Amino acid sequence: MLVSVTRPIVFLSDYGLEDEFVGTCHGVIAGVAPECRIIDLTHAIPPHDVRRGALVLAQAVRFMPADAVFLAVVDPGVGTARWRLAVRTESGSNLVGPDNGVLSLAWARLGGVVEAVEIASPDVVLQPIAPTFHGRDVFAPAAAHLARGSDLASLGPPVDSESLVILSLPEAEVRRGRVFTEVLAQDRFGNLQLSARPVDLEAAGLSSARVLEVRGLGVVAPLHVVASFGEVEHGDLALIVDSGGWLAIAVNEGSAAEALGLSSGDALTVAELGG
Amino acid sequence: MLVSVTRPIVFLSDYGLEDEFVGTCHGVIAGVAPECRIIDLTHAIPPHDVRRGALVLAQAVRFMPADAVFLAVVDPGVGTARWRLAVRTESGSNLVGPDNGVLSLAWARLGGVVEAVEIASPDVVLQPIAPTFHGRDVFAPAAAHLARGSDLASLGPPVDSESLVILSLPEAEVRRGRVFTEVLAQDRFGNLQLSARPVDLEAAGLSSARVLEVRGLGVVAPLHVVASFGEVEHGDLALIVDSGGWLAIAVNEGSAAEALGLSSGDALTVAELGG
Amino acid sequence: MLVSVTRPIVFLSDYGLEDEFVGTCHGVIAGVAPECRIIDLTHAIPPHDVRRGALVLAQAVRFMPADAVFLAVVDPGVGTARWRLAVRTESGSNLVGPDNGVLSLAWARLGGVVEAVEIASPDVVLQPIAPTFHGRDVFAPAAAHLARGSDLASLGPPVDSESLVILSLPEAEVRRGRVFTEVLAQDRFGNLQLSARPVDLEAAGLSSARVLEVRGLGVVAPLHVVASFGEVEHGDLALIVDSGGWLAIAVNEGSAAEALGLSSGDALTVAELGG
Repeated sequence: MLVSVTRPIVFLSDYGLEDEFVGTCHGVIAGVAPECRIIDLTHAIPPHDVRRGALVLAQAVRFMPADAVFLAVVDPGVGTARWRLAVRTESGSNLVGPDNGVLSLAWARLGGVVEAVEIASPDVVLQPIAPTFHGRDVFAPAAAHLARGSDLASLGPPVDSESLVILSLPEAEVRRGRVFTEVLAQDRFGNLQLSARPVDLEAAGLSSARVLEVRGLGVVAPLHVVASFGEVEHGDLALIVDSGGWLAIAVNEGSAAEALGLSSGDALTVAELGG
Repeated sequence: MLVSVTRPIVFLSDYGLEDEFVGTCHGVIAGVAPECRIIDLTHAIPPHDVRRGALVLAQAVRFMPADAVFLAVVDPGVGTARWRLAVRTESGSNLVGPDNGVLSLAWARLGGVVEAVEIASPDVVLQPIAPTFHGRDVFAPAAAHLARGSDLASLGPPVDSESLVILSLPEAEVRRGRVFTEVLAQDRFGNLQLSARPVDLEAAGLSSARVLEVRGLGVVAPLHVVASFGEVEHGDLALIVDSGGWLAIAVNEGSAAEALGLSSGDALTVAELGG
Repeated sequence: MLVSVTRPIVFLSDYGLEDEFVGTCHGVIAGVAPECRIIDLTHAIPPHDVRRGALVLAQAVRFMPADAVFLAVVDPGVGTARWRLAVRTESGSNLVGPDNGVLSLAWARLGGVVEAVEIASPDVVLQPIAPTFHGRDVFAPAAAHLARGSDLASLGPPVDSESLVILSLPEAEVRRGRVFTEVLAQDRFGNLQLSARPVDLEAAGLSSARVLEVRGLGVVAPLHVVASFGEVEHGDLALIVDSGGWLAIAVNEGSAAEALGLSSGDALTVAELGG
């Protein structure tokens, strides 16, 4: 006898927790798939920040259950023309969300898209579809049906997977002794995630330095290259590899964002000390 | 053989997530009903705002599982004399919370109350009952017992359902060419939900207008009647029907609350352009 | 036939919900223990506030399911030398977290530690361990393995339970007619939890007073001794026993923290009126 097991849903959005948006989507999912576990990855993506949503989702993929359905709703274009997308990747994963790039960094890590559909089936979407809340009426029920084992094709007509929106990320620019980069994101602790990885330091010939320099908006400060915050003195700036594999600037028991006056999108340079 | 299935609990409160109140209630529920799914509708109702809690709960009802137990704790009168209420509606639903009206808009949508009890059974409430935390000691365990299949009558003595507190909502006042209304609520995106529905626009003879006018506290501005934010220019004001069926004012990729300087409870008029 | 049941995990941290830290830990737990219920006690412990985390965890213990695994991550020393701890208490409970005292008030309520290990097994921790995110790579998977029924000994080598870090709390100082105390914590409603209990009032000979006096930073104000907020006039200060058994100062439908200008760590005196 076959045992039907409901797959978990990993849910990310910019809905916040100040309103009932997330809870309402949970209710819709529970109505379709009563046994479905929902993992709330985060709902604090800044409103309409598709790039941040895409980065967080992609970074989380390898820590989520192998059979997870990914549901990502950061959707400044809700109610306008764009695919309401559900895809299957080379790895067999499913992702659900608007076709604005928010899913694209995650599916790249899952082997790329092998099948895509527009969510449209009247057996899936809630009627009438509110033009302002596709999370509730389109994406949550689609994810719930996939979690219960529905085929992608049952959600709606196929979409050409070559036509899907792909996000591109800012890349670090490497010179001898310098890495030009920008702040990708800032977390609750004030740590600054950079658009650069250890390989960029290496390419700049900086990988053996114990102390580097950060140059931002009118600020030049020494940067201690360490494995964890705790290795520098209180208040000193540390350059670490963060839990997502990016370079990040942190202050031991303090906020690097405050210390440097930098935030998401700001440019900065990591360079040789006094170089 | 009978299979006993635990019903889900839909939980709304003004407890916020800054403290352990919500988590403690979850623990109490899990102790009584280990298999019970809890759907956190929202815990960000402004402290003691019974009306907002009642509105959010009522609006969510139709998206929640049909067998849900509703647990709503917005309770400025905690520890004073008021029923600690559990009810059964015409539709067979159960609702649990203080008798201050917070449940009343939801039960109206569920066919009205057919049975009500005061939660008092020593087999249900935690002893001693903390006078400041009935959510933990009275309401959460009562909801958990209902979720496990207990009868309403096992929670405590009957209460006259005619005596229960009913909330009334502000209603729009309609004249020819004008709708006088107020702001019911403001969400994370700065959208303003109004105490008016499309039927009020129609009654005012405004349902075919493409552009109307909003008049608030010293502000007069054009209002584009559209189906979704995305249809107006960035920064323009849109009048939409929100996902709860109310009229709402929004700004495409901006905040209507900021643009108009209005918030919950403020009066405003939606009128003919220049009328 | 044996039925294997997954134990629930009670999860507390200072990760906040602004980032994906909590969601990522949930994903890791779900990967190891797909059936595991996670009770998020709170993730809003102020960053690095080990004492607050320890207090909240200890206070919650008696409301959580008897078979819960406690996972508490408030870890300013992440990545530096300190045990990555998992313990078993006299009561049979398991607790997981850094050895900095955050678990110590909870295990004291559970009969004390009878077995302790350093979490190190390569079958348990995720490789490579990010030096900045032991919650994800060490503590969450350890809790998940315990929830599935693993023995403590399978997580890593034994640690001398006599060597573990124990937190001490500020204690109230009692004189005739006066209790010198401090603010332990402030909640969402502005209520101030004090480092004093009803027994301290009694020792000071104040337990029969109906009105006392609070003396703080340049403030002297009357304090009404009541069972719940609702018993005093709007704006008046009330001295209550809070839901954790501590004395607390509250304002009916207002904020005691604002009224008195006091917050966590501030000293104050509760004394005879005009005494």
